[in-house]
Amino acid sequence: MKISALQKARYEYQPKLPGMLRHGIAEIGVKEGEATQSVADQAKIKALFPNTYGKKEITFEKGTNTSVAKKQVVGVILSGGQAPGGHNVVCGLYDALKAINPENVLYGFKNGPSGLIDDDYVVFDDEFINQYRNTGGFDIIGSGRTKLETEAQFEVATKVCQKHGITAIVIIGGDDSNTNAAVLAEYFAAHKTGVQVIGCPKTIDGDLKNDDIECSFGFDTATKTYSEVIGNIERDANSAKKYWHFVKVMGRSASHVALECALQTQPNICLISEEVAAKKMSLSQIADYIADSVEARANNGMNFGVAIIPEGVVEFVPEFSVLIAEINELLAGAKAEAFNALATWKEKYAFIEKGLTSESMNVFKILPEGIQKQLFLERDPHGNVQVSLIESEKLFSELVKNKLVERGFKGRFNPLHHFFGYEGRCAFPSNFDSDYCYSLGYNAAMLIQYGYTGYLSKISNLSKPASEWVAGGMPITKMMNIERRHGEDKPVIRKALVELDGKPFKYFEAHREEWAKETYFLYPGAIQYYGPAEVCDATTKTLALEQEK
Amino acid sequence: MKISALQKARYEYQPKLPGMLRHGIAEIGVKEGEATQSVADQAKIKALFPNTYGKKEITFEKGTNTSVAKKQVVGVILSGGQAPGGHNVVCGLYDALKAINPENVLYGFKNGPSGLIDDDYVVFDDEFINQYRNTGGFDIIGSGRTKLETEAQFEVATKVCQKHGITAIVIIGGDDSNTNAAVLAEYFAAHKTGVQVIGCPKTIDGDLKNDDIECSFGFDTATKTYSEVIGNIERDANSAKKYWHFVKVMGRSASHVALECALQTQPNICLISEEVAAKKMSLSQIADYIADSVEARANNGMNFGVAIIPEGVVEFVPEFSVLIAEINELLAGAKAEAFNALATWKEKYAFIEKGLTSESMNVFKILPEGIQKQLFLERDPHGNVQVSLIESEKLFSELVKNKLVERGFKGRFNPLHHFFGYEGRCAFPSNFDSDYCYSLGYNAAMLIQYGYTGYLSKISNLSKPASEWVAGGMPITKMMNIERRHGEDKPVIRKALVELDGKPFKYFEAHREEWAKETYFLYPGAIQYYGPAEVCDATTKTLALEQEK
Repeated sequence: MKISALQKARYEYQPKLPGMLRHGIAEIGVKEGEATQSVADQAKIKALFPNTYGKKEITFEKGTNTSVAKKQVVGVILSGGQAPGGHNVVCGLYDALKAINPENVLYGFKNGPSGLIDDDYVVFDDEFINQYRNTGGFDIIGSGRTKLETEAQFEVATKVCQKHGITAIVIIGGDDSNTNAAVLAEYFAAHKTGVQVIGCPKTIDGDLKNDDIECSFGFDTATKTYSEVIGNIERDANSAKKYWHFVKVMGRSASHVALECALQTQPNICLISEEVAAKKMSLSQIADYIADSVEARANNGMNFGVAIIPEGVVEFVPEFSVLIAEINELLAGAKAEAFNALATWKEKYAFIEKGLTSESMNVFKILPEGIQKQLFLERDPHGNVQVSLIESEKLFSELVKNKLVERGFKGRFNPLHHFFGYEGRCAFPSNFDSDYCYSLGYNAAMLIQYGYTGYLSKISNLSKPASEWVAGGMPITKMMNIERRHGEDKPVIRKALVELDGKPFKYFEAHREEWAKETYFLYPGAIQYYGPAEVCDATTKTLALEQEK
Repeated sequence: MKISALQKARYEYQPKLPGMLRHGIAEIGVKEGEATQSVADQAKIKALFPNTYGKKEITFEKGTNTSVAKKQVVGVILSGGQAPGGHNVVCGLYDALKAINPENVLYGFKNGPSGLIDDDYVVFDDEFINQYRNTGGFDIIGSGRTKLETEAQFEVATKVCQKHGITAIVIIGGDDSNTNAAVLAEYFAAHKTGVQVIGCPKTIDGDLKNDDIECSFGFDTATKTYSEVIGNIERDANSAKKYWHFVKVMGRSASHVALECALQTQPNICLISEEVAAKKMSLSQIADYIADSVEARANNGMNFGVAIIPEGVVEFVPEFSVLIAEINELLAGAKAEAFNALATWKEKYAFIEKGLTSESMNVFKILPEGIQKQLFLERDPHGNVQVSLIESEKLFSELVKNKLVERGFKGRFNPLHHFFGYEGRCAFPSNFDSDYCYSLGYNAAMLIQYGYTGYLSKISNLSKPASEWVAGGMPITKMMNIERRHGEDKPVIRKALVELDGKPFKYFEAHREEWAKETYFLYPGAIQYYGPAEVCDATTKTLALEQEK
């Protein structure tokens, strides 16, 4: 068998475009808005982007297409981690380019940004691209994590573009990749290469969003996939009535995924890293918070529950970050040798006890032994603790267990552990992501045709039906500020964290007490691509709450 | 929010009955077939079931309902692990009972078979049952693992039945529960209680099937759910091109789940426990088999792959079973004290080396240290090794890594690990399981109305559309043989293992070489409840292959 029944059926799906892009290329007019300013550090950003700063926001509308006819040769790049819908961005871009002019050509640079430097590419045609319509994955051309950021890379990129007569590059990526897209656009403009650059907002983490970008693509499908299995686990917990499930979900630097999954499934507990940081919560406080729910439920005869843990949460616990910094210092350089020379864990433990401050030692002490050892024994090539390897779902269930013992808890507490990440990054895109991504790609072609560069393809009004979506573009520099990265001031797109005064968190906060004590589980079930619109076409609760009037 | 959009939509789904049950109760006639014999040990089984042995197979057909009008008071029990569709068995049973006579009553005994003994129940009405139509989970009345098998339990059960005027008990369970259903039916018949017993074949493991029962319910939905996420992981592997995913799936005593997932997703590797046992494979041979695929793929530039591992596989490796037996012996009773008194792992290791045969020591030596320690340090209350706790997905990835090092493998091998079990047991039942389960329950009511006892509700011809399904019943004794269990000869339903000369395995065997070397991944996507029939209504590949003409 070559393809599944669903894949075959999904080939037939025709993604929905925003209303103003539905009348054919000849009737897509443009409306320019006000000149833009970056969200902060305007003078510095302007100095860094003299050729691309301060451009106008633009919106497409039904009207006369006033763009100048010109053959376009476009290159597209997938950058970073997979997100459902990436293939549809490419398909939308391809379809629009061909609709504008059948002579237009689309190159796909392979395996991420390095494909542009290595001049490794495919040229798309109908037969090839049709195999990828409405499918998940980035396998159409592969992806990669090479960053395009040095002058030397830009020079090579220029040569490759000139060789093929490329007029524009479309970069599909997250905040870093789009920051780099802006820098590349500036370089191309400064060097008068005639090559435009357009970005598309991708990431399942949901942390690329702001006043202009309502959400990144892939977030909808990934969170629906995680919520499906979390809901199934909730129903299992509520049927078997004997396990506490600790479910870790992807999201190292922000907890949008955890929050959205919580809104969709109403678990007993969901940690939000941003709140942990804001309230400067300790591991012990977090463990107490969970243990309170375990106890309250046990008192009502419910020895089961579900807790969602965002992947990066321990990095947001202030005392834990201090501990990690101390460990890194304690083992820096030659100091590691003395430690490694010690034969037994007991001797090593004594070394640690002597080396850490008493505050950090108190944190270290409450950790399960497995994690204590991991912190000291598994370090990266630079000798640093590998925080991302810490199984925080197991850490917290262990801490909760210890708390319950301390409290003299008489009930049962049987934890089970899960981690969902890879399961959702390549799912067949939901109808929302299929439509949104196709629109982003189609819209990117229109931005190219109209001559814009340094813009992010922008589709908005997303909680409404696609017919009411608004297509346009926003200068990437508008989303930038200056941040300290690796000891240097750099212009970057501000990463969106969960806002503790935002509506999605407020809704969660208003309900979590009753969710913790009672059983309000919601079972969203598998993503549906067919059937009633309220089942198939609704987007995330996060977006619905954010856009609620 | 109280229920999800999908749950609301699923309430409206009308499950499909077999054609002959669609004409209304008055037109369901019965056709009795030949008297039956048990599949083996006929004399012994007959002696154990004097009142219920040798009954006739029966089939329902369109015709005149010749059953005797009588008010039915039925009790239903969910037994053992959750399986998608359990709620629909109850709904089908309820609807048929009410259609036969609105005065009929359905009791639901709570939290498994113990509910019958404890007289803990609910009485169903429309409002209550409508909340559970076409939903996953067993939360409607809960489930439990208490076994009904002693005379004392049967006496209590009789009293409870008499108290409520119960005329029949329906037990929804796996092979053990249905074996016990047959024993209970015999007891009720021998004691002239007038209470009938009907079983329904449930288990996601797929190991309750035979010449009469084509498949147990829940297998379809659970394997589709696992295959969805395995397919997503495959697409991720094929996009990122840098990880080998080792995916463990539920199935301790049989590998039907692993095989069905492999047929649905075409991974590079799938182990089948029954084959491992039949070929007496060693851990080293299995590791070599996987390492061959890793090497071959790396040589073709593919440093990624997916391997499916059935949960129970290590218990099927003969040398491993011997090792476990030796360890249990080595630590039996007081001998554990000497071992526990040793302070360091080094000393313990020396103790082990002295105690094991050299053959078993050779097996022990190649295990990763974590698993070596687990075998000796984590034992159950009887001092036995807890084989089910062994993370076989990590065991095999570690063994493969060691093999690759031995072979001087120069490529990359980055393994990641997953376990899918709880994710699939409570999913919304697929259309197939919704229909099949509803039919099983509806059919059970007809068997009751016609006065049968000791029967399994039987729906067959399942790879065809529901209109062509055949409804009837089969004496449970027909599926029994005598097996040695815990030192006793017991009559039991023969457990179905994967047949190595059966069509599903043969199909897998014919393709696995090319799957191992090339990339033939299939992406089934999420279960669809709406849309094209070939996407929504197709059942398992296992069944399709088994019933292929």
